[in-house]
Amino acid sequence: MKREQLTEKILDIKRENGWTWKYICSEIGGMSEVLVVGALLGQMKLVKPLAKKAAELFGLSEVEERMLNEVPMRGTPMPPTDPLIYRFFELVMVNGPAWKALIEEEFGDGIMSAIDFNMDMVREPNPKGDRVQITMSGKFLPYKYYGNEQGIPDYGFKEA
Amino acid sequence: MKREQLTEKILDIKRENGWTWKYICSEIGGMSEVLVVGALLGQMKLVKPLAKKAAELFGLSEVEERMLNEVPMRGTPMPPTDPLIYRFFELVMVNGPAWKALIEEEFGDGIMSAIDFNMDMVREPNPKGDRVQITMSGKFLPYKYYGNEQGIPDYGFKEA
Amino acid sequence: MKREQLTEKILDIKRENGWTWKYICSEIGGMSEVLVVGALLGQMKLVKPLAKKAAELFGLSEVEERMLNEVPMRGTPMPPTDPLIYRFFELVMVNGPAWKALIEEEFGDGIMSAIDFNMDMVREPNPKGDRVQITMSGKFLPYKYYGNEQGIPDYGFKEA
Amino acid sequence: MKREQLTEKILDIKRENGWTWKYICSEIGGMSEVLVVGALLGQMKLVKPLAKKAAELFGLSEVEERMLNEVPMRGTPMPPTDPLIYRFFELVMVNGPAWKALIEEEFGDGIMSAIDFNMDMVREPNPKGDRVQITMSGKFLPYKYYGNEQGIPDYGFKEA
Amino acid sequence: MKREQLTEKILDIKRENGWTWKYICSEIGGMSEVLVVGALLGQMKLVKPLAKKAAELFGLSEVEERMLNEVPMRGTPMPPTDPLIYRFFELVMVNGPAWKALIEEEFGDGIMSAIDFNMDMVREPNPKGDRVQITMSGKFLPYKYYGNEQGIPDYGFKEA
Amino acid sequence: MKREQLTEKILDIKRENGWTWKYICSEIGGMSEVLVVGALLGQMKLVKPLAKKAAELFGLSEVEERMLNEVPMRGTPMPPTDPLIYRFFELVMVNGPAWKALIEEEFGDGIMSAIDFNMDMVREPNPKGDRVQITMSGKFLPYKYYGNEQGIPDYGFKEA
Amino acid sequence: MKREQLTEKILDIKRENGWTWKYICSEIGGMSEVLVVGALLGQMKLVKPLAKKAAELFGLSEVEERMLNEVPMRGTPMPPTDPLIYRFFELVMVNGPAWKALIEEEFGDGIMSAIDFNMDMVREPNPKGDRVQITMSGKFLPYKYYGNEQGIPDYGFKEA
Amino acid sequence: MKREQLTEKILDIKRENGWTWKYICSEIGGMSEVLVVGALLGQMKLVKPLAKKAAELFGLSEVEERMLNEVPMRGTPMPPTDPLIYRFFELVMVNGPAWKALIEEEFGDGIMSAIDFNMDMVREPNPKGDRVQITMSGKFLPYKYYGNEQGIPDYGFKEA
Amino acid sequence: MKREQLTEKILDIKRENGWTWKYICSEIGGMSEVLVVGALLGQMKLVKPLAKKAAELFGLSEVEERMLNEVPMRGTPMPPTDPLIYRFFELVMVNGPAWKALIEEEFGDGIMSAIDFNMDMVREPNPKGDRVQITMSGKFLPYKYYGNEQGIPDYGFKEA
Amino acid sequence: MKREQLTEKILDIKRENGWTWKYICSEIGGMSEVLVVGALLGQMKLVKPLAKKAAELFGLSEVEERMLNEVPMRGTPMPPTDPLIYRFFELVMVNGPAWKALIEEEFGDGIMSAIDFNMDMVREPNPKGDRVQITMSGKFLPYKYYGNEQGIPDYGFKEA
Repeated sequence: MKREQLTEKILDIKRENGWTWKYICSEIGGMSEVLVVGALLGQMKLVKPLAKKAAELFGLSEVEERMLNEVPMRGTPMPPTDPLIYRFFELVMVNGPAWKALIEEEFGDGIMSAIDFNMDMVREPNPKGDRVQITMSGKFLPYKYYGNEQGIPDYGFKEA
Repeated sequence: MKREQLTEKILDIKRENGWTWKYICSEIGGMSEVLVVGALLGQMKLVKPLAKKAAELFGLSEVEERMLNEVPMRGTPMPPTDPLIYRFFELVMVNGPAWKALIEEEFGDGIMSAIDFNMDMVREPNPKGDRVQITMSGKFLPYKYYGNEQGIPDYGFKEA
Repeated sequence: MKREQLTEKILDIKRENGWTWKYICSEIGGMSEVLVVGALLGQMKLVKPLAKKAAELFGLSEVEERMLNEVPMRGTPMPPTDPLIYRFFELVMVNGPAWKALIEEEFGDGIMSAIDFNMDMVREPNPKGDRVQITMSGKFLPYKYYGNEQGIPDYGFKEA
Repeated sequence: MKREQLTEKILDIKRENGWTWKYICSEIGGMSEVLVVGALLGQMKLVKPLAKKAAELFGLSEVEERMLNEVPMRGTPMPPTDPLIYRFFELVMVNGPAWKALIEEEFGDGIMSAIDFNMDMVREPNPKGDRVQITMSGKFLPYKYYGNEQGIPDYGFKEA
Repeated sequence: MKREQLTEKILDIKRENGWTWKYICSEIGGMSEVLVVGALLGQMKLVKPLAKKAAELFGLSEVEERMLNEVPMRGTPMPPTDPLIYRFFELVMVNGPAWKALIEEEFGDGIMSAIDFNMDMVREPNPKGDRVQITMSGKFLPYKYYGNEQGIPDYGFKEA
Repeated sequence: MKREQLTEKILDIKRENGWTWKYICSEIGGMSEVLVVGALLGQMKLVKPLAKKAAELFGLSEVEERMLNEVPMRGTPMPPTDPLIYRFFELVMVNGPAWKALIEEEFGDGIMSAIDFNMDMVREPNPKGDRVQITMSGKFLPYKYYGNEQGIPDYGFKEA
Repeated sequence: MKREQLTEKILDIKRENGWTWKYICSEIGGMSEVLVVGALLGQMKLVKPLAKKAAELFGLSEVEERMLNEVPMRGTPMPPTDPLIYRFFELVMVNGPAWKALIEEEFGDGIMSAIDFNMDMVREPNPKGDRVQITMSGKFLPYKYYGNEQGIPDYGFKEA
Repeated sequence: MKREQLTEKILDIKRENGWTWKYICSEIGGMSEVLVVGALLGQMKLVKPLAKKAAELFGLSEVEERMLNEVPMRGTPMPPTDPLIYRFFELVMVNGPAWKALIEEEFGDGIMSAIDFNMDMVREPNPKGDRVQITMSGKFLPYKYYGNEQGIPDYGFKEA
Repeated sequence: MKREQLTEKILDIKRENGWTWKYICSEIGGMSEVLVVGALLGQMKLVKPLAKKAAELFGLSEVEERMLNEVPMRGTPMPPTDPLIYRFFELVMVNGPAWKALIEEEFGDGIMSAIDFNMDMVREPNPKGDRVQITMSGKFLPYKYYGNEQGIPDYGFKEA
Repeated sequence: MKREQLTEKILDIKRENGWTWKYICSEIGGMSEVLVVGALLGQMKLVKPLAKKAAELFGLSEVEERMLNEVPMRGTPMPPTDPLIYRFFELVMVNGPAWKALIEEEFGDGIMSAIDFNMDMVREPNPKGDRVQITMSGKFLPYKYYGNEQGIPDYGFKEA
């Protein structure tokens, strides 16, 4: 059994029952909707109690329940061909260099973690047309300058 | 003159003066830092009053000032090789399908605009290590079902 | 069940019955032919009343009808290998920069929406050989200069 | 001298003089704006009388004038990274199969020429936001079934 | 049913019967061998009378016969990995620029059509080893300079 | 000095003098126009007597003359973006499998050489629009079944 | 039936019987082991008498035997991901330019044929670790300078 | 000035002086050799005191010293064409799935950080030929299951 | 039977029994866990005694046992889309040039073998968060300067 | 200074003097011609005594001589576009799987080294046309099964 087959089965059951993701997530609960949907689509792991609830909801076998608890081989084809997903790709392509400049100036050399990371997506009512509002927060991870255990700090000449 | 040459010149002047982006943005003002930095890096346009301020700050010629006011050929190489930018790419690659599922369920068929879009990036203090917080808001644009001017609505069978 | 399987089934039924797209679209109605055919080929969603009509015409199950009402993962392989589709790709490749220059000069910084977009395709009789006439109209979406809520306009130096 | 160098020179002169494309095209005249701008950007050829006018306007040397009259090595990088051009690419990616189905049903086996082709782009005023209207017309070219000079027609069984 | 499945079935029947392409083409007749073989391999359409003959020869169902009459989604993977096909690819890669220079000088700005095109392939006996002789003829299609309906001709300065 | 620089210089001189390829080839002579133009564009070698004539015509230095006599690193970017060259690429992509089937049936396992190869291109007058006629002839090279020096022939069961 | 399916079947039978390639080749005989193994893996053709022997050894049907006698669509995915095959790829990548320089100096403009080509692979005992010895021999094919039937030779200035 | 130009200058000075990396690192000190060399090759940042030392050693200007203190746009072309670097790439390609399986089993869902990471490389004397020994240590970062602040643990069914 | 099918079967049995890799490796024993897991995932070969044990543990047929003893076609898709594997890829991309510089300076021209190579992975307890520690050791293989059997050594001018 | 610039300079001097590679290699001596030419083309290192001789022959500066002694960043663009080099690439693509099968059967799991490797290329006179004969010999490197220091041998069931 492959994870894609389980995903296809889950989508078939969702369709047959006419369930929404909102309903499914409220039944499984316990984590952000993005993560629960991500797991059902084969990109995330469900911890055991949630895998159990998902299995009950979808009528999955014990082996399928265990597969939902496994870490999948993550990733989807890039560049995205779907317009909705492409817009996020484009944001990275166009704004990436500015994000890099500003984050490094504020935090120093490092990255925003995509692992110790959370995210919320809400509808923002707006008379000109509602908006999708996304809030993300990732831990800043400084590059480790190993061999520098004595901790030479990063100063020495002045900035305006 | 190519836009890359102007970007290189601006970065040289920034380096010679030891300026920070924060200082540069406060001098130019009038728009989000992401956009101002994006323009100076060759991915955005500066409206004329801001291009003028940027030209004064960097001591640019009138022709260079006009170039800052032009819409550039946007885009940077993908997939990003830089770790900081790559993490955003990874977020799209891993979470794209879940975002698509949730946005379409909430808003219907359409996309979050990457054009009528804004974004804030702030430092989120945290005892376990500060976090990068990003808030984005893009207008939802529904797919137009042309030829359906009479407006057949999207209902007809029930959902759970 | 995957969307490709539904598309293959629909094409099989069309072939068995010797139906034309024109006939199919007239039976389903309610939207542009490009959209209806696009949905049957797995690139668009049919709103529920049209999905119902399509299901009746093709003798689909209720679950297949619901799938036609889902937003598919859009996109087809690029560059196109089929000569008919490639010619459109070539038009973008050769004329894209000129379109960008002219649209930006007329409308300012922004894009023509590919979402709030409609299109007509008609036969244009011509003694030297009939022509394919395509009329497209997409909403212009100006880039939002966020952080510029006070609205600094884009002028400041003169143009010829 | 390479064509890109001539394009860069032309853009420099345009910027120095603060000219618009509209002004440039009205000075050169004689052909659609998309073609004249395309030629100045290095994707099209200007016939000699127009190359002469362009040379006078931009103060080009005779050799540069001759280069404008040459057919360039056409084509720009794909997929486009610029959002404005990408939207056209996306239209082909999403709608290509439906266009193919409908054109072939209406015209038979063949293509819409991208060579014997014309195009107009106008602003379509609209209270909800102006639109970009594009009208294209390309000659339909039927696939030649060589070896079939006696002309076996394409019928033999009926369609609904 | 997919076109590849029909191609596979046809090749199976050909193999079982030990037929040559020459025999098959003589049975179906009415068009060039390249086109008939191309259609049986899924790259071309057979007009109805030929599809009928092909169906009789191979014992195909009526639905399979109709599929042979459909325009397929043309194209095969590039670059070709097969040495025989690669040599043609290499000819384009190495000689393309010279062909472009010579065709444009002789005919003006335009292309040789790959649609209104025919081709013959014969064995050329040669004491040093027989040769493959290919004769191709494609209609020259001049680029249309639209907006130039008054017909500004392409002269104005002299050539040696 | 790189071969591209020599090509650029040659094209500059051709443009300055307003020479045609026909004129250049008649001056250099001794080989097919496709090969002479190919050499001047950096894809072929000119044998010494021709390199000498080319050097005299273009006023090249002795070192440049020697470079024309060198075998260049052949090849141009693929897939071709230029429409004229792309049409040849498309012919290979669409017809390659049929060519393979027919050549192998006629000649056995092997290839048509792209090295021991010649080619002619002429204008074919035609009342419906002149055509480009290309005649190619390449030596057939059979795959060598080494280890089979005793020559086991390829027969054993019958074909229709 | 596809060639991959036949290859998979042959490998299954080899595994079930615990046969070595050496054994298989000695049973089929008549050609180099590289070619026989290549054919069984789907990259080469077996001439009829060898296809017959292979069919007897593996217990293949007559149709499968005929498929072994067909020229396959040659080629495997590149760059190779398997380390053993990659090392050969690397040899070409690193040494290709030197091979080109030396072969062209020795033989003139042309190529070493990959078709009229043979190859031997033997174990070379060596106290520091045995070595793989490969001997290849390909016919040199000179580029044909067509249009030069009178045979202008390639001399005219002296070399050291 | 671009970072590549600074790297080229540094390599020129190293070559002129016949310095080794070991000597250079001992002069600059304060961090692992991999990081110092990485910074001089344009992939890492040197903290200010080290940038100062590097500037003194290489006789760099103050602006060049500041550039060494900047975070570069990291990344080099992949797949690596150089055999030494390729072997590391191959290790990831072949062993990646096993590393994933074992790390996830030991640590749970997450990654080994490539940012909070250190590394040592030493020569391991060995009578059969010395070996390169590399020790790497990266912080394990668990995937954050946001929306699960109450902390549902990952157990519920037993494992062998 | 394909190796992927065997891998899928093994993973199914592992899941059904709720086994860990640690348990599986302790049952099979005899080699590093990375290698045993690699073999079960289709990237390595198990020597016969271990293949036997694996077959007993998983209840495999004799043919499946033999397949585990075969050298697979190694390699997985690159660049890796899974975040855990990507981090290793990134380490190569960012640090590759520094590794090359340091290894070549220490050992001379050559590579670290990815074949005569071993590796250990252990958990490194750390109060700030445990770390993944990886120790690798590969034999250094000097480039052979063939044709230099007399052994010209690599010295001749001095280094600092 | 970049290695490509040195290569270009060396080729310029070779051309000006009308030297052959044979002459150059006889002057530098001490290693195989493939390696010496490879080094001059920027793919190999010359040991110091040879770098000295090369520097004397070409009149290089001391710094250029040192660069010839450096290990370059090896590798050239793949797939090769030049026909001569492509034929070698094709040999790997078509024969790679058979080589893998035969080498692994003869030597066990491992690779033929591309580092401890030598090669000879000679002209093989042949009345049907001379041939290029290449002899390669690379050390076989067995995959190390680490964790198996006790040396479990690879036997246990019999082979035919």
